[in-house]
Amino acid sequence: MLITNIGELTTGVDEAPLHDAAVLVEEGRIAWVGAEAQAPGADERIDAGGRAVIPGFVDSHSHLVFGGDRAAEFEARMAGEPYAAGGIRSTVAATRAASDDELRARLGGFIDELHAQGTTTVEIKSGYGLTVDDEERLVRLAAEVTDEVTFLGAHVVPAEYEGRAEEYVDLVCGPMLDACAPHCRWIDVFCETGAFTVAQSRRILETGMARGLAPRLHAAQLGPGDGVRMAVELGAASVDHGTFLSDDDVAALAGSDTVLTLLPGVEFSTRQPYPDARRLIDAGVTVALACDTNPGSSFTSSMAFCIAVAVREMGMTVTEAIRAATVGGAAALCRDDIGRIAPGARADLVLVDAPSAVHLAYRPGVPLIAAVWKDGRRVDSRA
Amino acid sequence: MLITNIGELTTGVDEAPLHDAAVLVEEGRIAWVGAEAQAPGADERIDAGGRAVIPGFVDSHSHLVFGGDRAAEFEARMAGEPYAAGGIRSTVAATRAASDDELRARLGGFIDELHAQGTTTVEIKSGYGLTVDDEERLVRLAAEVTDEVTFLGAHVVPAEYEGRAEEYVDLVCGPMLDACAPHCRWIDVFCETGAFTVAQSRRILETGMARGLAPRLHAAQLGPGDGVRMAVELGAASVDHGTFLSDDDVAALAGSDTVLTLLPGVEFSTRQPYPDARRLIDAGVTVALACDTNPGSSFTSSMAFCIAVAVREMGMTVTEAIRAATVGGAAALCRDDIGRIAPGARADLVLVDAPSAVHLAYRPGVPLIAAVWKDGRRVDSRA
Ligand SMILES: [Zn+2]
Ligand SMILES: [Zn+2]
Repeated sequence: MLITNIGELTTGVDEAPLHDAAVLVEEGRIAWVGAEAQAPGADERIDAGGRAVIPGFVDSHSHLVFGGDRAAEFEARMAGEPYAAGGIRSTVAATRAASDDELRARLGGFIDELHAQGTTTVEIKSGYGLTVDDEERLVRLAAEVTDEVTFLGAHVVPAEYEGRAEEYVDLVCGPMLDACAPHCRWIDVFCETGAFTVAQSRRILETGMARGLAPRLHAAQLGPGDGVRMAVELGAASVDHGTFLSDDDVAALAGSDTVLTLLPGVEFSTRQPYPDARRLIDAGVTVALACDTNPGSSFTSSMAFCIAVAVREMGMTVTEAIRAATVGGAAALCRDDIGRIAPGARADLVLVDAPSAVHLAYRPGVPLIAAVWKDGRRVDSRA
Repeated sequence: MLITNIGELTTGVDEAPLHDAAVLVEEGRIAWVGAEAQAPGADERIDAGGRAVIPGFVDSHSHLVFGGDRAAEFEARMAGEPYAAGGIRSTVAATRAASDDELRARLGGFIDELHAQGTTTVEIKSGYGLTVDDEERLVRLAAEVTDEVTFLGAHVVPAEYEGRAEEYVDLVCGPMLDACAPHCRWIDVFCETGAFTVAQSRRILETGMARGLAPRLHAAQLGPGDGVRMAVELGAASVDHGTFLSDDDVAALAGSDTVLTLLPGVEFSTRQPYPDARRLIDAGVTVALACDTNPGSSFTSSMAFCIAVAVREMGMTVTEAIRAATVGGAAALCRDDIGRIAPGARADLVLVDAPSAVHLAYRPGVPLIAAVWKDGRRVDSRA
């Protein structure tokens, strides 16, 4: 398959977008990228009609396996009530009450929704089960739809362990990890006041690492703390949120391979202050953008929306935001086979219904995703 | 056609959404609304699958007939340059250079895009021609796709009239109005420092009114002024923007039938401060939401996006924002046959892919419009 007549090609490798370029796909991989005039022959030719092509979005942070929704809580919060992390527990109750088939059908619907919006790789966390059996089924269901599964048993202390957080951490590090690790690549903790302390988070991550899981961390969303530096010290792939970062945090991130993943949907939907992406990028930190799709703090699944908000509110240029949503997300998952359009990479491609990828931010909210290929196959519902 | 199994029905008439309701459509109009158990028979039944149904959006402010785009200007502004109204002139040049067929094709694409996003009525302004012939063709082309056409010859003083604004106003009030009035229902002026003064705006509106056009006004976007009160005094259907309103402005609006139309896409895409919808609603002003789709200050065409931003940034509840995007838009166009689901109204309906219309704000950026009917006929591209 040869894609021709591309108005603007964002490769994620070249500094600036390419013009008059073509892309050859063979057996699910990018086989060749170059000037259309030099393009090799191909059985199938796809005319992009002068529109922009970008890498499929890499959404490196989501919580897509859950039951119910919290529309009423959202509505009340927008009418003036503050966001409280405890709301997670209502989703835990709805998730425990849902059958495997119900959760699987819901998850399948979300995957279709992501594909239609240009996301070709998604990381999915557990964290709404909070029992050994429920966490095991969440990571098992997630593993049916993605390779990037994260064990987040330490999402919140469940109601039945109220006042006994250390006992819950014992459970997470013991039988729950035993049950979940076989389905997972990653381990994560919600390190925040009201959730887990830095010491608890470190213990959980280190225990998971000893079992072969790689660490990532939710930190600095609601206030400052030592979580970010602890995660960098452990070599976490990513620290996520990062609204409240000290200069030491920024320096630690800049001096490491740890990505800082920004989640603008959260600030949009909770009216929290936006993190300053400009400060991070200027300091040399690798930044990713992700949706954090979850029913409490951010129910968007639109990477284009996150790009638009990051540009409006976080001081990112459009180019930086698109890069963060593709190459950045790939870095946050320690992947070099996705997030870029280069020979050897997976053929995860998005055709944007506009002459330039800038339109993703310039036309906020407008569904501009015209076609999506994952491993060289159309996956959007218009196919 | 009978729509059944509606999870939540927003009628625009009842205070709260209805449950277990059904809607009967006959000959393009709503024939009956009531409890599903009491529904009359119908040839065709449509199962909403427990999803929400709302009135089609009424987008009462757009500038959809133009050539080119200003993606580069947007990108530069997001990287730090301020918004300048003079950028309109670059779109004027591109619009004058485009053929009727080019403009018609572009406009048709926008109409499809609006339908796919749930907008069933759109007002369209001229204003990128600024010669007698070019303004005439813009309103003529707009009239091919909507009954709500607005003559906005007084959008900006064109480059060739630099320093001769009064002469341009003479042209607008004379031969340009002669050429355009037959295609239009409305007359509008961009009343702002850098565009037209209050005195010029009044003269243009009054001249148009004498020709049978009804007045509306762009005012108080970039700074305070007397435009709002002048428009109320003339009985304008709507004043649009309204970021900088004095207490007297608010009182004048509240004591009138003039709607204040908020355009959150503009503030989002120019980083201007957001107007305070809460203050307006609490004072008793009728508020509408519209996209202001244009290539300079707001290129969104998503009413759902505008609803989400209005809730996040302008102090509106979700219910108020949806109301402003439907009944409010209808009021801004002095229409009572659209914007609500009630017997006798046009069958302009939107099926939302969620159990509640709250999801339009709760899931920002996600394309949730599952089906759209205008005058009882499917118009979304999925049909
Ligand atoms: Zn999260
Ligand atoms: Zn306007």
